[in-house]
Amino acid sequence: MTQITTNQEIRSHRYCVIMCGGIGSRFWPYSRANMPKQFIDFLGTGRSLLQMSYDRILPVVPKENILVVTNEAYAALVKEQLPDLPARSILLEPTRRNTAPCIAWAAYHIKACDPQASIVVMPSDHLITREQKFEESILRGFAFVESHEALLTLGINPSRPETGYGYIQIGSEVEPGINKVKTFTEKPDIELAKVFLETGEFFWNSGIFLWKAETIIKAMHEHSPEIAQVFDRGLAVLGTEGETAFIEEEFPTCMSISIDFAVMEKASNVYVETVDFGWSDLGTWSSLYDNSPKNSSANVTQNCRVLSYDSTGNIFAVRGDKLIAVSGLNDYIVADAGDVLLICPKAEEQSIRNMVSDAKLKFGDKYL
Amino acid sequence: MTQITTNQEIRSHRYCVIMCGGIGSRFWPYSRANMPKQFIDFLGTGRSLLQMSYDRILPVVPKENILVVTNEAYAALVKEQLPDLPARSILLEPTRRNTAPCIAWAAYHIKACDPQASIVVMPSDHLITREQKFEESILRGFAFVESHEALLTLGINPSRPETGYGYIQIGSEVEPGINKVKTFTEKPDIELAKVFLETGEFFWNSGIFLWKAETIIKAMHEHSPEIAQVFDRGLAVLGTEGETAFIEEEFPTCMSISIDFAVMEKASNVYVETVDFGWSDLGTWSSLYDNSPKNSSANVTQNCRVLSYDSTGNIFAVRGDKLIAVSGLNDYIVADAGDVLLICPKAEEQSIRNMVSDAKLKFGDKYL
Repeated sequence: MTQITTNQEIRSHRYCVIMCGGIGSRFWPYSRANMPKQFIDFLGTGRSLLQMSYDRILPVVPKENILVVTNEAYAALVKEQLPDLPARSILLEPTRRNTAPCIAWAAYHIKACDPQASIVVMPSDHLITREQKFEESILRGFAFVESHEALLTLGINPSRPETGYGYIQIGSEVEPGINKVKTFTEKPDIELAKVFLETGEFFWNSGIFLWKAETIIKAMHEHSPEIAQVFDRGLAVLGTEGETAFIEEEFPTCMSISIDFAVMEKASNVYVETVDFGWSDLGTWSSLYDNSPKNSSANVTQNCRVLSYDSTGNIFAVRGDKLIAVSGLNDYIVADAGDVLLICPKAEEQSIRNMVSDAKLKFGDKYL
Repeated sequence: MTQITTNQEIRSHRYCVIMCGGIGSRFWPYSRANMPKQFIDFLGTGRSLLQMSYDRILPVVPKENILVVTNEAYAALVKEQLPDLPARSILLEPTRRNTAPCIAWAAYHIKACDPQASIVVMPSDHLITREQKFEESILRGFAFVESHEALLTLGINPSRPETGYGYIQIGSEVEPGINKVKTFTEKPDIELAKVFLETGEFFWNSGIFLWKAETIIKAMHEHSPEIAQVFDRGLAVLGTEGETAFIEEEFPTCMSISIDFAVMEKASNVYVETVDFGWSDLGTWSSLYDNSPKNSSANVTQNCRVLSYDSTGNIFAVRGDKLIAVSGLNDYIVADAGDVLLICPKAEEQSIRNMVSDAKLKFGDKYL
């Protein structure tokens, strides 16, 4: 009985921050400024990526300890998709400032309410296929950061020499499955990625982090004091009714920087938990293709109805019950968002950003 | 004054029959069962092909002498697109029976109202770019058939060795620009088409005909008596209130056959007027491509907005102000009809018929 109470007590101090402010421009036009990737039922499961992220963390932390940080523009979408989430659990950024200010605000906000808090921070738009493994990994991570003054990142056991991800090189093991971080690396070229894979020392950087609120705030003070100072000025109002006005005023003054650059690559108390729970960042059409079930012609058809002839290796992303009849098309992205149709070879998907720019130049915001 | 009266008197007996019952399945999905090709603003001019056909004949025959023959299903579309056309000028076929029964009915109907009538019969879905030349050609044709017991067809001066058209070989000249027909030919292969072009004796079969009502009815009796007999049974009611009930009952008993097979290839009094007024039957996506203005990348963009990269030779047919962003696509048809998207190499467009069949098998009438 004492043990159970203790577990519940520990659990009550565990929080999740779901980062949900991205714009998903690499998936234009299927992902749009007013309906980014994380709000779309991207895999045809009936739940958006955000909803899947919420569902996934629900068994791990108390419902009332789940927070979503998003852009003001998406407040209504978050409320609509997560009706169980109380309004106070949605933190609305007045402007986009990358992940470090987002994570800092969430940490200060949570610590103001619960000084003992530990936090898992995770993106809203990733795919995780093995949910039981995910739960176990997060629970192990919480236990580690609660007993160490540690910044913990999850490193995914790589299954292929992927050039689209950053890698984490592990150092000495501190307990089974948790190591010191030796280096963070940028996206490698294919030759280097193959070397990474062979050594067994390199893991994909997942963008999922765990730490105590006080540990990350302390690290912010040390490694990114400009950001910490912004929130230090708000200590009196964070967690109170005055918080919204403070954030409106002060959040935009934060520099725009990722948590990796701002803290993780500088701090010495950084650890990696190596995990293997079927993860993809779904960062590109090609990764979506790789992670989606294929039909007998090796096409990915998302939700849609496709009649294909001599066509293989394509990804079709079309909303509703639209029919696609396609002949002689191989290895293309075909994405239809109603008012925009994209047809682009998978190998050329980096040019989508240029298309978005050109569409903006030529037609203003109409098709963004 | 006498001369003018005489001209007006002659003009008052001239009729036009616009055949408007086609289903346009080669242009699926842009052309649909409920909105076939002839009703679409196919060239982005602001007028449908039917409206353009009506506009074109209006200077030539009296407005009240223009008839449209169409399927019952398209009655509302015809009324909407040609609001000046009185209801009595729309002949509604209860079922599709190809051109011979359509032409026979129209001839019997017109002759019942005006025994001296001469008629130009023309499709509703062809392109003619030189309207003044067209007017002159039709007027010359009327004059010829009014003074001869002749079945006159218009033969287009060929500009290329087209394999998509039937050809008419001319015989002896009977007056400038009008010859006896020597042979009708089926669509030739490319080698034969080249020979045709070199000889100067072969003209494209336009499907535009002129004759007196009594001449075509006489030819029907001689060469297609099964069809003539059907309408002979209706002589008492054609042109009266009883016509509709008669047609509902009897029209479906007609054999389904083209006017070429039923009459033109059998009769001896068949003549061809050789013309040159910028004609295309717009029968295929490729012919639409050939006849449409291209942008600087040699793409045909119909009405729509296209951002193209490394893409040439395509035809984009998309309704409304949808944006197409396309990369690395060459010589394709991209046709979007809202609920169906077709992507098909121009060279494979004959497979569209199979796609329509497969869509019907799999989804019923939903996408037809």
